[in-house]
Amino acid sequence: MKVKEILEMVENHEISVDEAAILIDNPIDYATIDYNRKRRTGTPEIIYGSGKTKEQIAGIIKNMLEHDQIDILATRVDATKAAYLKKLYPNFNYDKEAKTFILKQSETIQNKGMIVVVCAGTSDIPIAREAVLTAEFLGNEVNLISDVGVAGIHRLFNKMDVIKRANVIIVVAGMEGALASVVGGLVDKPVIAVPTSIGYGANFNGLSALLSMLNSCASGVSVVNIDNGFGAGYMAHTINCLGGKR
Amino acid sequence: MKVKEILEMVENHEISVDEAAILIDNPIDYATIDYNRKRRTGTPEIIYGSGKTKEQIAGIIKNMLEHDQIDILATRVDATKAAYLKKLYPNFNYDKEAKTFILKQSETIQNKGMIVVVCAGTSDIPIAREAVLTAEFLGNEVNLISDVGVAGIHRLFNKMDVIKRANVIIVVAGMEGALASVVGGLVDKPVIAVPTSIGYGANFNGLSALLSMLNSCASGVSVVNIDNGFGAGYMAHTINCLGGKR
Amino acid sequence: MKVKEILEMVENHEISVDEAAILIDNPIDYATIDYNRKRRTGTPEIIYGSGKTKEQIAGIIKNMLEHDQIDILATRVDATKAAYLKKLYPNFNYDKEAKTFILKQSETIQNKGMIVVVCAGTSDIPIAREAVLTAEFLGNEVNLISDVGVAGIHRLFNKMDVIKRANVIIVVAGMEGALASVVGGLVDKPVIAVPTSIGYGANFNGLSALLSMLNSCASGVSVVNIDNGFGAGYMAHTINCLGGKR
Amino acid sequence: MKVKEILEMVENHEISVDEAAILIDNPIDYATIDYNRKRRTGTPEIIYGSGKTKEQIAGIIKNMLEHDQIDILATRVDATKAAYLKKLYPNFNYDKEAKTFILKQSETIQNKGMIVVVCAGTSDIPIAREAVLTAEFLGNEVNLISDVGVAGIHRLFNKMDVIKRANVIIVVAGMEGALASVVGGLVDKPVIAVPTSIGYGANFNGLSALLSMLNSCASGVSVVNIDNGFGAGYMAHTINCLGGKR
Amino acid sequence: MKVKEILEMVENHEISVDEAAILIDNPIDYATIDYNRKRRTGTPEIIYGSGKTKEQIAGIIKNMLEHDQIDILATRVDATKAAYLKKLYPNFNYDKEAKTFILKQSETIQNKGMIVVVCAGTSDIPIAREAVLTAEFLGNEVNLISDVGVAGIHRLFNKMDVIKRANVIIVVAGMEGALASVVGGLVDKPVIAVPTSIGYGANFNGLSALLSMLNSCASGVSVVNIDNGFGAGYMAHTINCLGGKR
Amino acid sequence: MKVKEILEMVENHEISVDEAAILIDNPIDYATIDYNRKRRTGTPEIIYGSGKTKEQIAGIIKNMLEHDQIDILATRVDATKAAYLKKLYPNFNYDKEAKTFILKQSETIQNKGMIVVVCAGTSDIPIAREAVLTAEFLGNEVNLISDVGVAGIHRLFNKMDVIKRANVIIVVAGMEGALASVVGGLVDKPVIAVPTSIGYGANFNGLSALLSMLNSCASGVSVVNIDNGFGAGYMAHTINCLGGKR
Amino acid sequence: MKVKEILEMVENHEISVDEAAILIDNPIDYATIDYNRKRRTGTPEIIYGSGKTKEQIAGIIKNMLEHDQIDILATRVDATKAAYLKKLYPNFNYDKEAKTFILKQSETIQNKGMIVVVCAGTSDIPIAREAVLTAEFLGNEVNLISDVGVAGIHRLFNKMDVIKRANVIIVVAGMEGALASVVGGLVDKPVIAVPTSIGYGANFNGLSALLSMLNSCASGVSVVNIDNGFGAGYMAHTINCLGGKR
Amino acid sequence: MKVKEILEMVENHEISVDEAAILIDNPIDYATIDYNRKRRTGTPEIIYGSGKTKEQIAGIIKNMLEHDQIDILATRVDATKAAYLKKLYPNFNYDKEAKTFILKQSETIQNKGMIVVVCAGTSDIPIAREAVLTAEFLGNEVNLISDVGVAGIHRLFNKMDVIKRANVIIVVAGMEGALASVVGGLVDKPVIAVPTSIGYGANFNGLSALLSMLNSCASGVSVVNIDNGFGAGYMAHTINCLGGKR
Repeated sequence: MKVKEILEMVENHEISVDEAAILIDNPIDYATIDYNRKRRTGTPEIIYGSGKTKEQIAGIIKNMLEHDQIDILATRVDATKAAYLKKLYPNFNYDKEAKTFILKQSETIQNKGMIVVVCAGTSDIPIAREAVLTAEFLGNEVNLISDVGVAGIHRLFNKMDVIKRANVIIVVAGMEGALASVVGGLVDKPVIAVPTSIGYGANFNGLSALLSMLNSCASGVSVVNIDNGFGAGYMAHTINCLGGKR
Repeated sequence: MKVKEILEMVENHEISVDEAAILIDNPIDYATIDYNRKRRTGTPEIIYGSGKTKEQIAGIIKNMLEHDQIDILATRVDATKAAYLKKLYPNFNYDKEAKTFILKQSETIQNKGMIVVVCAGTSDIPIAREAVLTAEFLGNEVNLISDVGVAGIHRLFNKMDVIKRANVIIVVAGMEGALASVVGGLVDKPVIAVPTSIGYGANFNGLSALLSMLNSCASGVSVVNIDNGFGAGYMAHTINCLGGKR
Repeated sequence: MKVKEILEMVENHEISVDEAAILIDNPIDYATIDYNRKRRTGTPEIIYGSGKTKEQIAGIIKNMLEHDQIDILATRVDATKAAYLKKLYPNFNYDKEAKTFILKQSETIQNKGMIVVVCAGTSDIPIAREAVLTAEFLGNEVNLISDVGVAGIHRLFNKMDVIKRANVIIVVAGMEGALASVVGGLVDKPVIAVPTSIGYGANFNGLSALLSMLNSCASGVSVVNIDNGFGAGYMAHTINCLGGKR
Repeated sequence: MKVKEILEMVENHEISVDEAAILIDNPIDYATIDYNRKRRTGTPEIIYGSGKTKEQIAGIIKNMLEHDQIDILATRVDATKAAYLKKLYPNFNYDKEAKTFILKQSETIQNKGMIVVVCAGTSDIPIAREAVLTAEFLGNEVNLISDVGVAGIHRLFNKMDVIKRANVIIVVAGMEGALASVVGGLVDKPVIAVPTSIGYGANFNGLSALLSMLNSCASGVSVVNIDNGFGAGYMAHTINCLGGKR
Repeated sequence: MKVKEILEMVENHEISVDEAAILIDNPIDYATIDYNRKRRTGTPEIIYGSGKTKEQIAGIIKNMLEHDQIDILATRVDATKAAYLKKLYPNFNYDKEAKTFILKQSETIQNKGMIVVVCAGTSDIPIAREAVLTAEFLGNEVNLISDVGVAGIHRLFNKMDVIKRANVIIVVAGMEGALASVVGGLVDKPVIAVPTSIGYGANFNGLSALLSMLNSCASGVSVVNIDNGFGAGYMAHTINCLGGKR
Repeated sequence: MKVKEILEMVENHEISVDEAAILIDNPIDYATIDYNRKRRTGTPEIIYGSGKTKEQIAGIIKNMLEHDQIDILATRVDATKAAYLKKLYPNFNYDKEAKTFILKQSETIQNKGMIVVVCAGTSDIPIAREAVLTAEFLGNEVNLISDVGVAGIHRLFNKMDVIKRANVIIVVAGMEGALASVVGGLVDKPVIAVPTSIGYGANFNGLSALLSMLNSCASGVSVVNIDNGFGAGYMAHTINCLGGKR
Repeated sequence: MKVKEILEMVENHEISVDEAAILIDNPIDYATIDYNRKRRTGTPEIIYGSGKTKEQIAGIIKNMLEHDQIDILATRVDATKAAYLKKLYPNFNYDKEAKTFILKQSETIQNKGMIVVVCAGTSDIPIAREAVLTAEFLGNEVNLISDVGVAGIHRLFNKMDVIKRANVIIVVAGMEGALASVVGGLVDKPVIAVPTSIGYGANFNGLSALLSMLNSCASGVSVVNIDNGFGAGYMAHTINCLGGKR
Repeated sequence: MKVKEILEMVENHEISVDEAAILIDNPIDYATIDYNRKRRTGTPEIIYGSGKTKEQIAGIIKNMLEHDQIDILATRVDATKAAYLKKLYPNFNYDKEAKTFILKQSETIQNKGMIVVVCAGTSDIPIAREAVLTAEFLGNEVNLISDVGVAGIHRLFNKMDVIKRANVIIVVAGMEGALASVVGGLVDKPVIAVPTSIGYGANFNGLSALLSMLNSCASGVSVVNIDNGFGAGYMAHTINCLGGKR
């Protein structure tokens, strides 16, 4: 965004004077962006939106755009921040379930292999979508299979064809998180388990699913943080890269 | 055991003078045995052997025999205590895996319905056997199915015929305890879940399986204490009674 | 609900255009409803309302009605969601204490035996009612006994006549949850204990009652998740079925 | 013990040269004994034996005797330490259950009121005895009532006569610790609750009873540390003093 | 409150029709009031307001007044509930810090001995006041000493004169709760420790102070639940009764 | 603030009559200010604003001003309280990030040595600033280095020159808190680690960073409470004093 | 092992009669071996030795050999069990550090890519070796880099050349587990983090490293159970397969 | 130790052939010793003996001696390892309480300021001594004050003269750890608090003291790991360096 464009937005009352000031002069002393990262690890730095103010996120995006970063992903952007950011950066996509704010300009699918995200219940979908959108952002083909929890295990079996075609499987589940073990026992591909905080009482904000997944009796299962759909999507991408580029 | 018999054992050096003294004169001021319990709840009091000395267990058994209790069950009797007790009460059966010390003189099977105990791994068998022997002691037909954990879920499916014939199902599992949810989703009978302390690291002595089972996404599952095979067997019996007597 | 009825509601401004759209065209890709479940486990799938949006619940209900499911139970439906759903489905009953949204068209009482729900304190009543309404929904006669906590234990004794007539007893208690052990020691029927999060400080959101109930010194007690009135009602129903149908 | 006596013990091979050296020359730089305490709080300092070596305990006792302290109580003295100490101080009493090592030379009962210690199970007796012996050491009449846990609550009711005559009641219970609440609801005297680590699985070394007692729905109940029979006996004594001296 | 008075309040628009209905016809099936309690334990039942609706509290108060209970204490009554109740029962006193709603018509001070409440920090005062008002309600003379935490321990020493005159001392402290141990080491009277949830980070809602007080190295200290000022006041009263009546 | 000034503020409607009353007549019986502290420990008492009402903070500040305390620091003052206080004390500085309310009239930098605050992520800045402002308030030169978390460790290495010039280093980090160990291994100066509650899921409100820092494999690292920027700044100051005064 | 061979071992007193009996007639009703697993997931079932008796392990191995399984891995085989097994199966290799008991007859290295195991401290080596031997057993080339913890981070940098050549990196660390984040920030390959229970105090048996790794600020890191070297090796193998076969 | 000396020890049967082999040829591939550390942080690497075998410790010491390191400290060396090491390195000092194995050849006291270690109870002395010996090893004058816990707070006051002369104070305390707060409130110097695992029941292996110290209401207190006397001694040394060299 050029200064002139910003000023036009002010003129048109699309943004306030204060907001314009942030965009024009924002030295971001609060952040040390790691532009070297893409060279070092193959992916650009991602913006973790949760503890940051909307102005800080705006500033970091601006700085990235100025450094010609063509793909930008901010996670954990709540509705209020998104409304503010969308006004400034209308060409970004905001997903209100996954709370991701994304600009994706490079080629869509780069890796050969496919990633499947398997999701236990309807309530786990927001986390599953965060995984899906992250992996897609990073250049992967992703399939989402919803509501196949172990209480009705035939629902899972109906989807095994798709699941077995994947290079990597992400399992998203709350409550007792048993789905990760069941899937892990059925496939020969790496499984990334994402415990969610869905449930109540003795689920203790996701602790039950977390411990369950860490103690999985199936081999080939590793775990990311509670509700960390982003982390799972990223990890799956890193693994999927080993299968080669398109 | 009569005083005369005890004295003969002393004479034959089968037991020591001290041991005989316990048997002859043991006022058990350390215990208030609830002989009223059988009338009140339908089952005699069971001896929880864990925190008691072998002399205390011996004294309680003697007192029960003197009150004409024909069926006696002591749980959590370790090998050392068992060796001592077996000498005094040779007609009891000791199961070294389940750590039960049992005298069963009444009719074996009294309830109509059958109980199935489903056990996730080989390491969970001692707890499963405690459940089996408790339920049998209380007059039930019991079937044990071993090593059908969810990592190879077809093993479970191969046994569904037997499982579906049960009135009550006990699921014994450590690690992530996912088996309870899977079984719970496949049957229309009450499931009693027993978390075990089998596993390591973040299983935290059975906490992972406990939380997993409490948060089961399948309905019709309730939970007893970690490693509490006895409790599950007893609960299953109480339920099975509703199905009628033979 | 037919499309025509929906359109009439729009015409009468009873629902908005957006709401109508959900009802008319709602492919529910977010849920995989288990219509096979009734055949498999004897009861229809229940809607756990907590993590779902009101639109998702509406869609699932619509789908169930279209599949001719005559009894529908949604739990954990808060007041906001209920207001929305009630407008769409005026023949459902909403219980604001228990937070259940129910359509019950089949015969009311199907099982022979009676279930008693014993509730420690006034504050535990919402959870107790969730248990009551769930068990009634599933076809059981249910009695609720309130505010008989152990601090005044004679209150419990006054109600023992009713309690002893039950096939299954549900005990709902917060704080130290001692009521489950006391009831368990007085009856010969299965006891389902429901810890509640009522209390403060070192009750740690129900942990005290949960641990208390898991460690009950009385036999014949098993436990469901904290505040899980639904789970207790369901489990009690499953057990009560063993006592035969009316 | 005078130096001469010690030397005679060496001569008679009752103690070793090393042991004698400890007794004769033991500057106890490892302990700062609070002889002022009796004046300040009414009771002499008690020796907490757990983390101390047997030589340190011996040295502290010697120092106390040299300061003419006529009543000495050491708690948590295990069998090995006791054997060593008993040789040096044969006029002390060692209770192997309670693990107390006591010299009591002053008048036995000094307070008017009576203390009752109520104990849930046989396994809790060691802790209960620590409470009994501590309170007796401090000059109180104490009654112990054993094995009256809530699983058979009539056992408790049979003892209410004695319990109601007490000035202070100590309740010792493991597992779910429900006894404290039940007793608290039946009496109008202060109740000191002692959770014990008796139990297994989700009792987490006494946590279940501790939380249970802290959350007691009965008023007039306060709690000491897990397995802290000494603390309960001491607290009960402090309260009993308010009822006047004999 | 007579029906006629209620109707006059409706006529004067002081209360709504709905509110009047509650007062006139309120069968309180949600509560089993323990009027026998006063005879059994010496004190009337107290209303724990936290989990109850304002209508339920109103109904219980009405029922108590109808049973001629002259002293009534409701705890944990938040500002909203208090506004409602105050309108119905204007002669009750509401303390917004302590959140108590009190009617006290019997003689003020009945016990001889005095109770001192020692409070570590300004932030702990609400809990301390709950203890003060409870103990006063029950007929005790109470002194409150504020803000004498151990970080400036001379502040405590300046108040030792008053503290030493007490029969019972209540110590209210958050953060590390060290004040209980320090006071316990300086007095020869029973100390009731109340951990508060004041603090942040690793205080984990009062856990730090709770564990600290349970592990007090000073003898003669027992503990009530986190933030349980009421429990401490009640316990102190029970103890103070032993010192005789005025 | 003199009475006359207060009255003028009332006249000008700058503050309300109620607010004026607090300022004029505020006996602060809720606080025992430790004016002796400066002599005893070298620093004045600091106001911990979190659990106090705005009126209480105002009263304490007034009292301090009346005792001629020229430097005043209140921490954890939220925006609402700050707005109120700023009106009364317009010459104080409020930092909305750090939530500090400060009057600093003495000489700015008193100690010779410099303190560096190293901050892992943008989200940790509020805590880092609390540390910075506290240390500056106490008379230290402080440098803040932001967003140098270990995920891009070269960012830290770029700043090692400044870090190595410090006398004391404060490391502020959430999530896994690894920065403390890395810094600790690179310097020969004391490191104060501040875990923050930044993160989600299994960070359990800062527990992950807290445990991480307590278990640092680097020597020369000690830890303060979660989010306790104030504590770290104070500790660093105490250490920096050893390096001498300017 | 044929029956004849077994009998010869008895004749030569190499094994006892009892041991021979186990080998000859061992119906392994305690285990349901999943021979189908190799087809389903690409790897044979592994024997988790921890909760099994040495006789059970022997029986399972015998059964596997009879089913012509040419590669066999038993983990968590302690020294006592190993001595027994080695006598029966002398051509297996036992690693006393890793506690693995292995028969490997198929081709050694099958996958193209290389796996690096990075180990923080000397004390973590046993877990690291379990990972190494597991991954080698499954057909991978593995490199072990020891003692490169973050307290001296240059040690890690010296090894970056090797690390960057890997397809998958396993990081094994106890204490604060910071190494996983540092490595994760430096590479573009998937990182499997293994927390170990090495450390003391507030490491709480590996909880500190576990939480640290789950909260890693670096992306591309997923976690297995505490001390689960096997799980990490298996997961790494599953990932490495994606890179193609030799 | 030269090869020749080792061979002479073999000849004299002072060490075995195996032990000699370790000393002569020990490539220590299990450790990457950080000889650069002294230059980087001012102190040599210390050997944490806990997870290492005695042979590994011996090898590391040998390697250090070969690199001309004149001061060597190994911590957490238990009695068995010490016996082995002492034979090989007889000029080292082993302290059986502190479990340190030390060679100190450089000048004893290098720093100007003095460190005081204050220890709450006799049982805490081993940890306190680890702190003392570590700080002395690093070149500091250290004073140890024992058994001045807060239960008899005058004992502490008697020692305030010495404490106030220190540059840094280490407070070692178990149970409720209140001593850290009391000392912190009395001095103007940095306080390093060391929680110990001394205590029982709800001290949960040091958690009570740890949380207590982290939540200290006194400023200028920071905390190291439970039982980490070494860490406290090292931190105190790092701070004491700021006070200048002798």
